[in-house]
Amino acid sequence: MSIARPSGRAPDQLREVRIERGFTRHAEGSVLVSFGDTRVLCTASVENRVPGFLRGKGEGWLTAEYGMLPRATNTRNDREAARGKQGGRTLEIQRLIGRSLRACVDRTALGERTITLDCDVLQADGGTRTAAITGAYVALVDAVRVLQSRREISRDPVFGAVAAVSVGVYRGVPVLDLDYAEDSDCDTDMNIVMNDGGGFIELQGTAEGHAFRRDELDALLALGESGIATLLEKQRDALAR
Amino acid sequence: MSIARPSGRAPDQLREVRIERGFTRHAEGSVLVSFGDTRVLCTASVENRVPGFLRGKGEGWLTAEYGMLPRATNTRNDREAARGKQGGRTLEIQRLIGRSLRACVDRTALGERTITLDCDVLQADGGTRTAAITGAYVALVDAVRVLQSRREISRDPVFGAVAAVSVGVYRGVPVLDLDYAEDSDCDTDMNIVMNDGGGFIELQGTAEGHAFRRDELDALLALGESGIATLLEKQRDALAR
Amino acid sequence: MSIARPSGRAPDQLREVRIERGFTRHAEGSVLVSFGDTRVLCTASVENRVPGFLRGKGEGWLTAEYGMLPRATNTRNDREAARGKQGGRTLEIQRLIGRSLRACVDRTALGERTITLDCDVLQADGGTRTAAITGAYVALVDAVRVLQSRREISRDPVFGAVAAVSVGVYRGVPVLDLDYAEDSDCDTDMNIVMNDGGGFIELQGTAEGHAFRRDELDALLALGESGIATLLEKQRDALAR
Amino acid sequence: MSIARPSGRAPDQLREVRIERGFTRHAEGSVLVSFGDTRVLCTASVENRVPGFLRGKGEGWLTAEYGMLPRATNTRNDREAARGKQGGRTLEIQRLIGRSLRACVDRTALGERTITLDCDVLQADGGTRTAAITGAYVALVDAVRVLQSRREISRDPVFGAVAAVSVGVYRGVPVLDLDYAEDSDCDTDMNIVMNDGGGFIELQGTAEGHAFRRDELDALLALGESGIATLLEKQRDALAR
Amino acid sequence: MSIARPSGRAPDQLREVRIERGFTRHAEGSVLVSFGDTRVLCTASVENRVPGFLRGKGEGWLTAEYGMLPRATNTRNDREAARGKQGGRTLEIQRLIGRSLRACVDRTALGERTITLDCDVLQADGGTRTAAITGAYVALVDAVRVLQSRREISRDPVFGAVAAVSVGVYRGVPVLDLDYAEDSDCDTDMNIVMNDGGGFIELQGTAEGHAFRRDELDALLALGESGIATLLEKQRDALAR
Amino acid sequence: MSIARPSGRAPDQLREVRIERGFTRHAEGSVLVSFGDTRVLCTASVENRVPGFLRGKGEGWLTAEYGMLPRATNTRNDREAARGKQGGRTLEIQRLIGRSLRACVDRTALGERTITLDCDVLQADGGTRTAAITGAYVALVDAVRVLQSRREISRDPVFGAVAAVSVGVYRGVPVLDLDYAEDSDCDTDMNIVMNDGGGFIELQGTAEGHAFRRDELDALLALGESGIATLLEKQRDALAR
Repeated sequence: MSIARPSGRAPDQLREVRIERGFTRHAEGSVLVSFGDTRVLCTASVENRVPGFLRGKGEGWLTAEYGMLPRATNTRNDREAARGKQGGRTLEIQRLIGRSLRACVDRTALGERTITLDCDVLQADGGTRTAAITGAYVALVDAVRVLQSRREISRDPVFGAVAAVSVGVYRGVPVLDLDYAEDSDCDTDMNIVMNDGGGFIELQGTAEGHAFRRDELDALLALGESGIATLLEKQRDALAR
Repeated sequence: MSIARPSGRAPDQLREVRIERGFTRHAEGSVLVSFGDTRVLCTASVENRVPGFLRGKGEGWLTAEYGMLPRATNTRNDREAARGKQGGRTLEIQRLIGRSLRACVDRTALGERTITLDCDVLQADGGTRTAAITGAYVALVDAVRVLQSRREISRDPVFGAVAAVSVGVYRGVPVLDLDYAEDSDCDTDMNIVMNDGGGFIELQGTAEGHAFRRDELDALLALGESGIATLLEKQRDALAR
Repeated sequence: MSIARPSGRAPDQLREVRIERGFTRHAEGSVLVSFGDTRVLCTASVENRVPGFLRGKGEGWLTAEYGMLPRATNTRNDREAARGKQGGRTLEIQRLIGRSLRACVDRTALGERTITLDCDVLQADGGTRTAAITGAYVALVDAVRVLQSRREISRDPVFGAVAAVSVGVYRGVPVLDLDYAEDSDCDTDMNIVMNDGGGFIELQGTAEGHAFRRDELDALLALGESGIATLLEKQRDALAR
Repeated sequence: MSIARPSGRAPDQLREVRIERGFTRHAEGSVLVSFGDTRVLCTASVENRVPGFLRGKGEGWLTAEYGMLPRATNTRNDREAARGKQGGRTLEIQRLIGRSLRACVDRTALGERTITLDCDVLQADGGTRTAAITGAYVALVDAVRVLQSRREISRDPVFGAVAAVSVGVYRGVPVLDLDYAEDSDCDTDMNIVMNDGGGFIELQGTAEGHAFRRDELDALLALGESGIATLLEKQRDALAR
Repeated sequence: MSIARPSGRAPDQLREVRIERGFTRHAEGSVLVSFGDTRVLCTASVENRVPGFLRGKGEGWLTAEYGMLPRATNTRNDREAARGKQGGRTLEIQRLIGRSLRACVDRTALGERTITLDCDVLQADGGTRTAAITGAYVALVDAVRVLQSRREISRDPVFGAVAAVSVGVYRGVPVLDLDYAEDSDCDTDMNIVMNDGGGFIELQGTAEGHAFRRDELDALLALGESGIATLLEKQRDALAR
Repeated sequence: MSIARPSGRAPDQLREVRIERGFTRHAEGSVLVSFGDTRVLCTASVENRVPGFLRGKGEGWLTAEYGMLPRATNTRNDREAARGKQGGRTLEIQRLIGRSLRACVDRTALGERTITLDCDVLQADGGTRTAAITGAYVALVDAVRVLQSRREISRDPVFGAVAAVSVGVYRGVPVLDLDYAEDSDCDTDMNIVMNDGGGFIELQGTAEGHAFRRDELDALLALGESGIATLLEKQRDALAR
């Protein structure tokens, strides 16, 4: 079965992925990740304190925050700081990013430190949350390397790697890594977060138009697995540079 | 493989499910749904207006709100109204309920009306969001029947049925309909929303402890499908009374 | 002088009052109180801490919160948690409930504990605040019994009993325990809180239509006294079961 | 029975009451009212619009807002604007002021206008809400006179007069017009709002220490009636100047 | 060059300035300052604590808050406490007042105390921030005298004096101390804060209509210097009474 | 007099200034401006509506918003959207940016459109507000060119050019374009906004350590004028590319 994706990509083709480390200089980790025209600045900040519920337990914490610049999108959105609260979508995404990255961190090895992953979308073209997770992982590793180089921690608290991609059913065909044009016109939209052991960390599928059948789900999972394998490789390449 | 679930249930066994219609008298639909000790009051309220973005388009809207009484849980939680905002978990759940129920509604047949599904947890013991979706569907049908009996609408805007259940991997074994004791001690937690055509509407899986493998996912999906079949039957029974 | 109350009740007749203990299972005290169609869930939660201004003084605290489910009323009200603040009416009522119940509590005997009385209206038909006070007293006693059975306190911190009822001048006639139909069409509305020694704890009268004369006030107070005597008896019966 | 009031006043003696009209120049009515050291600036502002629920009904609206300067009191209180919300006490008081003054206004005669009574406490020494009601009445009359002089309204929308005073049981003795020293050490505190026809508009009594008996209530009401008679006279004098 | 200022004043003429100490009795310093019809109540409150970032450093803190009564102006403004936040203009002004007064305070000599300067505008006619700074200085000195008389501090933490005035280009002519009629119709508006050593503390100039040239700036600075000399004298006179 | 600036620059030397147009693709104007390590993304967004107070007047509006990514600075700052409000500094800066740019716009020529200038700091090293103004001007011109190319407007609403720079007294020497190291250790800090006609638009000087004398002010103004001349040239170059 063949369709024309608006982008001209093959169904199982990712957009061009770039991972640029050291994009800003203050943060312990700072990565500009691009999935095509989607560009997210992911910084990892280390602080020597933990939230109240962890104080004195010898464990660290990892959390994420997500934001979008008002004109990252086609039409301007209100600034959340000006509206006085973060919207439901923002909270949902930053909770997802935090859970996903905590899945590859041994918080005991981190000591009583908090790593905050700030994922700010400079330009949006679909898939901002999956780009954010993929980039935030690299920023996290960079921050941990700083801690190691300062000899503040002895054991590496990061085990394995985590990446994320979206998949969806676009005009009846399962496709990988939806851009905005596809995302706003697809029947099913699924975000998949996996680790480098092939395990699933998060799976969030939503039927936009009609409910998806089990065979569609299987096809989407297969696409996701292949896309994530590529993304994990891109992360390794970036971290090796 | 055999485990002892804290509740003594078989791995594929739902808790006792009760669906009590007409629990309060003002709302067009009012259902007290119980999944074991989890009790959620779901009301459906009809209003003759739509949000700004739909005005004048001849379409209706369906939305959901979720709340938990402060002492629905084992220890008291702050009242969200007193704290001055709804938390991320609340927003995430009410967005899920709204999307799930919109999946079985023809908004054109509804006319310029809004149906608000308020799901308030009176007592929590795990699975409040899946109970809420399952109960809200029944409240929705009742509200639509009121509109039909008043001859305000001619076509039935509800097509099919929607129900939800949680599944998880508890001590290595896939189990159906987690209660709180299981939920707080499981490796993977997944919420499944399906319609009566066997299609998936929402799938939200989270690895709590370790990432889940594809075969675990398949087992969870199978459990979910069987549980939802039973829940759909309970809904039909309740609506037939 | 004779009138037809919308409910057909005699001027000095309460609605049917039911007090159902143990309505939910987590709270130390949990009471569903009904004054006719007004149904309020009152829970009493014990926490082993006190607000900052009492810390280290060896005294306890008792406070109340009040809420109404969005569709407890005839038309749906905005959810206060979604609007981001509790309204003036809510704050006024919860302050009243707190003051009323503190009037029968020896906070020294309570030790450094806080009891929070959550009064959530499931269904409203007038008189929600008086039902809440009457039910919260029973929940409070249940919570104290739990503390005594756990041998956490030695002396009973509750002295006497507290109940509340509304009275009003409806079409020129003083009547007891206004329901919504009467409340929205009466000239004077008064809430009376008394203890079992016949003392007044709170008196809040408002002239809705025209100012009330001293003789009307006297008649209202007499009605209130008789209604509260009955309510105190209902509380005793419920607590004896 | 004789006591020494901290102020040296007789039990039935008001503090010195001053009502200074035209205290600021922009508002249609602007009154600085003093009950002893309690000083409240009451302004009445007229606007040619009504709240949404009254639009197009040919009726006006009257509402009140209350505030206290941060250092109006003995120790500094947080500024409510800085804390980001009005407290429960503030909301309760401004609702009381609004209801009390609406009791002497024919909103039809007002036309589609809103009068806002801002009562801001410059210095507090007990009884701020009763001083505010008493002063706001005078500001209201001044604002109405402006409307009449501009020939914007033909009929006087104010009928009768409204004043308020506090009474309480101080060391066992009923006393009139509590100042702060008495208020913080009394057993019962009651605010009485009456009109010039001798009718009650609001009655709010609270047992601080022990519940009050019916004979105490009667004594307090008698004190309140006499105090209000004097205050109504002070208002008339001020308006005649 | 000659113009008619709306007020009839000469270009270099201040409005009548009055500084009334002890306006309210609770605050350690309480000053009603008037620049013509602009009247601001400035209170200085001393508290024996400092903000978190200064705790244990042996230094004090000085901060300012600014507010305007809703009807201080020609048309009523929303009450900031009711709107739930302080506006940008308010925050900007209170930051300016705080910085200006900190410029004459040795915070070490103050010890671990906070002085809060509350500047509340009772009536506005232009220049509220400059009147506030000028009056707050006097309230500050009074509060420090109280600390000295109580022998809580040994060294005077206030060095020099601080006053402020506005200047502007009105219809082409530089003028001193703009009132509202001039302020709303001028090309350039500048607020100048200086100390009694002739040094500048703050300079905030804004071109309202067209950009101002260097020679205009010079003329404005000269006017400001002369106006501030007079204001410093008024402060000295007030403090000597 | 000679000093060593931490950056090694001469007292009258700007940092390297880069103005990169078209940094993101959705906004009508999108400029990444760098003053050394300070990098601000300025976007100009056009919307075909105006705020309520301008509706129907045939005029446009121009406004600015300012934000800083949480880790733009050396230590992480709380996200304003998460804290639920914009701080005083943010509001002050965005008001300054808005006023400065409105000074070069003929709002009648703009028609009933709003241009919003979002200035988001990606990396901070002092002078973010002056970089923001300088970059926002270029984004504004780009947005206007888009409107002209779409033939939506006939006349160019932008007249002249606007740029901004900071100056300060660092260790006794007046210097141009402070970076963070200088800014946090200087005696006087002044932000100057000028147009290409040599007129002043905004002047905001603050004495940090000691008050500044008139001769220091004159030296600072001279430095600012020369720096702005260079910045205006950089803007022209960027716009000519």
